[in-house]
Amino acid sequence: MKIARFRDARRTAFAVVEGEELVEIRGSAYTRFRKTDTRYSLKDVKLLAPSETPQIWSPGPNFAGHPGKAGQPRSESSSNGAQHPEPWQRGMNALTGPEDPIIIPKDSTGEVHLEGEAVAVISKLCRRVTPQQASKYILGYTCGNDISERTWQREDGSMWRAKSSDSFAPVGPWVETSVDPQDMEIIVRVNGQEVQHTCAKNMRFSFAQIVSYISQQVTLHPGDLVFSGATSASAQLHPGDVVEVEIPGVGLLRNPVVAEFDSSK
Amino acid sequence: MKIARFRDARRTAFAVVEGEELVEIRGSAYTRFRKTDTRYSLKDVKLLAPSETPQIWSPGPNFAGHPGKAGQPRSESSSNGAQHPEPWQRGMNALTGPEDPIIIPKDSTGEVHLEGEAVAVISKLCRRVTPQQASKYILGYTCGNDISERTWQREDGSMWRAKSSDSFAPVGPWVETSVDPQDMEIIVRVNGQEVQHTCAKNMRFSFAQIVSYISQQVTLHPGDLVFSGATSASAQLHPGDVVEVEIPGVGLLRNPVVAEFDSSK
Repeated sequence: MKIARFRDARRTAFAVVEGEELVEIRGSAYTRFRKTDTRYSLKDVKLLAPSETPQIWSPGPNFAGHPGKAGQPRSESSSNGAQHPEPWQRGMNALTGPEDPIIIPKDSTGEVHLEGEAVAVISKLCRRVTPQQASKYILGYTCGNDISERTWQREDGSMWRAKSSDSFAPVGPWVETSVDPQDMEIIVRVNGQEVQHTCAKNMRFSFAQIVSYISQQVTLHPGDLVFSGATSASAQLHPGDVVEVEIPGVGLLRNPVVAEFDSSK
Repeated sequence: MKIARFRDARRTAFAVVEGEELVEIRGSAYTRFRKTDTRYSLKDVKLLAPSETPQIWSPGPNFAGHPGKAGQPRSESSSNGAQHPEPWQRGMNALTGPEDPIIIPKDSTGEVHLEGEAVAVISKLCRRVTPQQASKYILGYTCGNDISERTWQREDGSMWRAKSSDSFAPVGPWVETSVDPQDMEIIVRVNGQEVQHTCAKNMRFSFAQIVSYISQQVTLHPGDLVFSGATSASAQLHPGDVVEVEIPGVGLLRNPVVAEFDSSK
């Protein structure tokens, strides 16, 4: 089942995707709901990121081949040596939806990179769960893009703007509840050309392990988003590019890249 | 005026504090509201942190005398040398209210420290504002406590659990809208004994400068919280302690310290 969040002229709501239609739901999209009689054509609404006020988590470097922080060589502290995930968090202001622009900030050096990832969506309050229990706390999976400003990532004391600038976390188009998470293929294209292709079976820490680990110190809430970690070397973005993150059987997340309007020029 | 958020037996709501009473309000606590005829005695309700789903920001070391990250000596990158704030963010799961326990995680080394601070509460969407404009985007000020697990802060790659473990951001008791922010006195007591006493006029970067700086990359939302930065050397906490952060003219935030229940023992 695919669960989407959308906006029409009047308001926002959640819906189940059936073919080319959305069937609006009532109740909680994350736990228990029923379908209503209200239907929309997908082409008549704006799809939104499928979560409202999430915390957004990442596990640190989590695939062989990822260059680690800011393009530096891997050290003992990165994925190959780590005994556990190295979680970090980005701001929910960074969240944006399908077809929304990825905005290159006007004061960026231009070194803005993509990393296509899979994203788990939490379904209920989750605290100190084991990896074996974790799947019961995950509603499903969607596509995400981990946008980074590499100069800021190298030079700042935290990743607040390197990873949390507005629009740096595109997520969508919807949540697929029936998928084997560690079997998802993740394909990334820039302007139609494939730049990444990997499989979640190569994740060093599975979604269940990441969710379990974070839940030891943090209560995860319905709608919280847990990224897979970056899958391989990243690609630089330029205004005018169109980026796609596709997970076959889940969906395709597409975003154009734009430069922030600079009124001072 | 003092604006509080509270819970009674049935629900949560916002109110204006008048003496020992709460007057419930209707509308947005952050922008425009009217008082209702519904009154509660302060002693009959539970005060909550005065924000619902905030992002929580800090400016990095911001007072002379603070030892910098995790007790290390200051370097060029810390407050004395910095040309701008070094913002970082903590999870909203860490937010907790007046009289709620600060929980020392069962897997902590025990090196859990307090830092009493003042906190600005954002009133409306705020993006690329100047320091001169920033005060128009701040509803008022409250008390906050920046709780840190110093071992995790030194050893982890990010501050996700060092600063964002559940209960590590007590905030309250309410928002005072009429106060000169850079003139606030911040007093911290542990078990009745004063351990910190400083004034916001010693902040290297003012609240207006911090809010302006964050807003260059991030859209701040109503209810978002911006801490002042730590005021001086921090104090270690132990189960059974009672911590108070008082800002005269604003309010007093009190929290007991407890050890997390360990069912494995």
